[in-house]
Amino acid sequence: MSADTGDSARRASTETRHQNLGRLFNPRSIAVVGASSDPAKAGSQALSTLSRFPGTLVGVHPRETDIRGVPCYPSFADLPKPVDLAVLAIPAKACVAAAADAAESGVGGVFIVSGGFGESGEDGARLQEELGEICRRTGMRLLGPNTSGFVKPSTRCIASFVPGVDTIGAGHIAVVAQSGGVNLSIGYMLDTLGEGVSIAAGLGNAVDIGTADMLDLLADDPDTKAIALHLEGVTEGRALYEALCRVTPRKPVVAVVAGRSDIGEFAVSHTGNLMGSRDRPVAALTQGGAVVVDTLDDLAQAVSVLAHRRLPARPATGLALITGQAGPGLLITDALKTAGVGVPELAPATVDDIQGRLPPMTFVKNPVDTGRPGPGFPDIVKAAAADPGVDAVLVFGISEPSVLNPSEALTPAYTDTGKTVVFGTLGPDEDVAVTRAGLEEAGIPMVLGPDRLALGGIVLARDARHQWLLSERGSAQPEPPAAPLTGAFDEARAKELLRDYGIAAPQSRLCETRAEAEAAFAELSKPVVVKIAAADIAHKTEAGGVVLDVATDADLAAALNRIAAIPTATPERVLIEEMAPDGIELIIGGIRDPSWGPCVVLGLGGILAEAVSDSAVGIAPLSDMDVDNMLEGLRGKALLDGFRGLPRADRSAVSAAAMAVGRILAEHPEIAEIEINPLRVNEAGAVALDALVVIED
Amino acid sequence: MSADTGDSARRASTETRHQNLGRLFNPRSIAVVGASSDPAKAGSQALSTLSRFPGTLVGVHPRETDIRGVPCYPSFADLPKPVDLAVLAIPAKACVAAAADAAESGVGGVFIVSGGFGESGEDGARLQEELGEICRRTGMRLLGPNTSGFVKPSTRCIASFVPGVDTIGAGHIAVVAQSGGVNLSIGYMLDTLGEGVSIAAGLGNAVDIGTADMLDLLADDPDTKAIALHLEGVTEGRALYEALCRVTPRKPVVAVVAGRSDIGEFAVSHTGNLMGSRDRPVAALTQGGAVVVDTLDDLAQAVSVLAHRRLPARPATGLALITGQAGPGLLITDALKTAGVGVPELAPATVDDIQGRLPPMTFVKNPVDTGRPGPGFPDIVKAAAADPGVDAVLVFGISEPSVLNPSEALTPAYTDTGKTVVFGTLGPDEDVAVTRAGLEEAGIPMVLGPDRLALGGIVLARDARHQWLLSERGSAQPEPPAAPLTGAFDEARAKELLRDYGIAAPQSRLCETRAEAEAAFAELSKPVVVKIAAADIAHKTEAGGVVLDVATDADLAAALNRIAAIPTATPERVLIEEMAPDGIELIIGGIRDPSWGPCVVLGLGGILAEAVSDSAVGIAPLSDMDVDNMLEGLRGKALLDGFRGLPRADRSAVSAAAMAVGRILAEHPEIAEIEINPLRVNEAGAVALDALVVIED
Repeated sequence: MSADTGDSARRASTETRHQNLGRLFNPRSIAVVGASSDPAKAGSQALSTLSRFPGTLVGVHPRETDIRGVPCYPSFADLPKPVDLAVLAIPAKACVAAAADAAESGVGGVFIVSGGFGESGEDGARLQEELGEICRRTGMRLLGPNTSGFVKPSTRCIASFVPGVDTIGAGHIAVVAQSGGVNLSIGYMLDTLGEGVSIAAGLGNAVDIGTADMLDLLADDPDTKAIALHLEGVTEGRALYEALCRVTPRKPVVAVVAGRSDIGEFAVSHTGNLMGSRDRPVAALTQGGAVVVDTLDDLAQAVSVLAHRRLPARPATGLALITGQAGPGLLITDALKTAGVGVPELAPATVDDIQGRLPPMTFVKNPVDTGRPGPGFPDIVKAAAADPGVDAVLVFGISEPSVLNPSEALTPAYTDTGKTVVFGTLGPDEDVAVTRAGLEEAGIPMVLGPDRLALGGIVLARDARHQWLLSERGSAQPEPPAAPLTGAFDEARAKELLRDYGIAAPQSRLCETRAEAEAAFAELSKPVVVKIAAADIAHKTEAGGVVLDVATDADLAAALNRIAAIPTATPERVLIEEMAPDGIELIIGGIRDPSWGPCVVLGLGGILAEAVSDSAVGIAPLSDMDVDNMLEGLRGKALLDGFRGLPRADRSAVSAAAMAVGRILAEHPEIAEIEINPLRVNEAGAVALDALVVIED
Repeated sequence: MSADTGDSARRASTETRHQNLGRLFNPRSIAVVGASSDPAKAGSQALSTLSRFPGTLVGVHPRETDIRGVPCYPSFADLPKPVDLAVLAIPAKACVAAAADAAESGVGGVFIVSGGFGESGEDGARLQEELGEICRRTGMRLLGPNTSGFVKPSTRCIASFVPGVDTIGAGHIAVVAQSGGVNLSIGYMLDTLGEGVSIAAGLGNAVDIGTADMLDLLADDPDTKAIALHLEGVTEGRALYEALCRVTPRKPVVAVVAGRSDIGEFAVSHTGNLMGSRDRPVAALTQGGAVVVDTLDDLAQAVSVLAHRRLPARPATGLALITGQAGPGLLITDALKTAGVGVPELAPATVDDIQGRLPPMTFVKNPVDTGRPGPGFPDIVKAAAADPGVDAVLVFGISEPSVLNPSEALTPAYTDTGKTVVFGTLGPDEDVAVTRAGLEEAGIPMVLGPDRLALGGIVLARDARHQWLLSERGSAQPEPPAAPLTGAFDEARAKELLRDYGIAAPQSRLCETRAEAEAAFAELSKPVVVKIAAADIAHKTEAGGVVLDVATDADLAAALNRIAAIPTATPERVLIEEMAPDGIELIIGGIRDPSWGPCVVLGLGGILAEAVSDSAVGIAPLSDMDVDNMLEGLRGKALLDGFRGLPRADRSAVSAAAMAVGRILAEHPEIAEIEINPLRVNEAGAVALDALVVIED
């Protein structure tokens, strides 16, 4: 305990740190260090982008006293009063001293644009470490280094070096990007969509302020209704996951995660972070209640829909689609169904109601193909929205002001049923602008084109489902650690541990001698499998140490002879185990990710499954619904449901096993890795046929 | 032959049809049938959208002689001279008579907006059939019915019923959509991208004018530089495929194909076409040299890049990426690599050259992360473009006019090396507009944002590869049909046919009696497999009629006894076959698609492969490169290359077998279906272990 006390004595309080985070992003006073009158220099650009800042703006410069009307002082100590934010527009090697001075003078936070830190090799990493230490010790916060900064249009605080970012309008979407360039990209995209931003911050090397800090800050920011998140490599994944679990029930989060392909070398060069396997951050984001999309275009569009409307948390969402043009409607339906979003057949009463308002032979089950919208269009939308199986209505119509006034046509459905309505259109720019303005007033989000309408429906449904999964998981407190396990684990001991956690394994006997083996064989149901149980043999099958279908005494003798011939210290030590009934084979692994913590991996067994990488990962602890979600993510999931005469898999037994593996990791931090391979599953349950437990060195 | 002569006597000549197609889309005179002064009516809207048409515009109306200044006549016969195009704005049931009158009076083509034809049931299908017959007989062409028409902004010919489409600008991209609504959607999207259209046509039910007609027309259209294609269900797939093979070497084609999910019922309601399995149209488009994308947004963006630049046909394209911001650069690289597009390491000389122009520690291997562009930027782009491994350069930079003038920075690379350069940016609208104008003049396409820049690179590479595949396939003339095969095919006969086409099958003997079986067993290498060869047993394995690993006389006796116990007319008829060596198992199928013609399906064997639908389809005849491309499309392709100690598959043997299956289909039109399941493949070659041939009834 004394070490902890010593440590906390060198650390600023959480309260100070939180307060200073607020000062950094909502500054009343800003100092630019390296302020310059040379337009090519970052210090000059910082002054330009901050020129409309309504608070106090000063420069720190060794000689100048005034640059373009901004008063300058030789050092932080000379400032009339401490500033909330200091912008360091100076080279990397000068930043540590400047940051120390800033902290000393009571600055709330600094923002460092320069590269040359962790991303550039050992010397830079050392500088970065020193910056981190200053922050931990003093409670001053640091944005960066190696980033483009942040913009907060509503307060005209443009702490960035890119001229033009001051054109990004004020809005209700916050952008949090690990990359400064991506931060600006998303900001411009949101502006083009007519949304603007509440704040847009690029975290760069994220030495101090990370994504988790930003999420917690934004959860309480009254200007922010939704958050767009960009991740490259995350070193403090678990903290991010836990922040997401807190924040997403309050505000929707949409994320892009780099790393679909192998781009590791370039990524390290960028922020110095290792990317790791992308499936873990994607799982953490999803389980944390965020919606992950593939591109920045989709990110901007998705978050702009969710900033306006969210659906209630639920396992599956039913969308109705009303379309004035069948072809685009077909593409929208196609995209929704491809994404697994429900487009349920409307209730008979709804169908009758709608059919009565349209020519015969029109397709009205859902989607509803109205043809060119007529006077009955508003009632059709209202009828679809009122359908008990419908959670939200998507409406598509090419702009035709003479036949359809979208805000008039859609508002009744929205106001009468309270259900979300999203409109998609395309047309001449001016018409579209008029339509957008009308719908905005009515509280109905509008998107351009069929693809984006489908995307809007998909992210509404995903957000609702992820929130439901989050609520189902509950706030299960992690179990207190059990008594630590020590020593080596062989298969028999590993299976004992599994049995303690409720995972079945076949009846078996661990036998030290041939006589014990013969006695065990007599007791067990035949046939059995005889497996070598030598501590010095890692790969039992490859060594020829696994003999299946041992049914007779002669079979047993042959099996024991074969195993005894394998060179090992304990040639007679074998595990004799009853053969398991037929079934599907799965693999369940438990790993401890350095960033994301305990994870459970679930996959189909067999070599093809491995060749197609058919597995799903979850962040432990898991709920049974989480495991079900993971199973639904397997490409070969059809195999679980009685495919081609195979036994149907008991999914609840799979869930129980996967959840138990998560619990084992939580209660035994000394376990580095655990694997059940295979887990044999059929209608009757799941049995671990082999198991591996690795204790941390 | 006499039937043929009679048929052609009732058919207009190809030349007349072709001439009339040109008249329809380039009319000098247009008549609107159903012209109306009631703004709610289609006939009124048609007059409005055509109001700026500079040619002759007349109306056909039973009573009126002038509607809003347009002269009207009671019938086609009363027109002063035949018009090139007649727009029928009248109900379905009136269209047949009007079309007949139009044809009689020498009209070039008609366009029918109304629905109520094939998509609406039997009565409509009959009307549609009558329209088709008029076209076949007279050579008059028909666009539609059930579509929004076409726009040709350069001639101000707006043959459509949607007000506002006249705002779509003139450009060099042609749109051909099966759906009228999709046609307009793509048109608006292209206009937003600053491209406009040469022509945009919605084909609707495509009774006469289909996608193949349009492609051939556009191949010769001097205004069209690239074609955007939208398909739902195609009834004349083979003609489309052949048109693509002709057209894509001249002009790039980008396509969207509906049907990623099961949307069949709604699709039929739309145009009356069955969708069929989407993998076949996608294969036909790809082999025909088109690039298939998933969304209309991607379609518009992709075609707008290809309209400006194409890369030379080649198997693999190397792209260099120069980026001013690392984060977006990472996302672009990620997207390129995920799509399998090469981002090769630059040559050492190029790396040295570029490194010399950038600060140390900068990542320059490819992508080149320049950081904020400096004065050396143009030379960096030029050096990358000059690299021998680079076919095109993608450049990304957030708009910063003070440090980067894109047209000045990129033009030298383009003019010096002739290689394609594409620029991606984001920034304030006005800056971006200035940049776009500058680059347009320089011949450098510009896109907005990292995702679209990646998309541009991907479609440039795909277009180049598909053209290479097309050129490798050559214009192989189909073989003249061989003597037709008749009678039933059992396994032995099927394997004989395969051997005739060079596909190996194990040594085997077909035995009618037990004595013959014993003699055959003595001759063949052991072990053998004994298979039932009864014409009345379709599923040999399920019937227990396949015995593997028959090595001894006792094994043989047991096998023959077991098979003889299966109830059949020929209990002693067996196929005795040498066991094939170990290997990977594939399935090769040959099918005759009603729309696309002979197709070859290639997949991995086994139940998981089936569960994940891991197969690829190709349009026969195939080249070996086509088959290789199909193999590369398999998710489990790693299994072919020595995965986990499995034998490496001889890909050339697989290619030979798949090509041979295609040839069998071509030379034997009487074969409805052929399947090799499994084809056992290892380093030494491929052997058909079982085969099925089905003769058309």
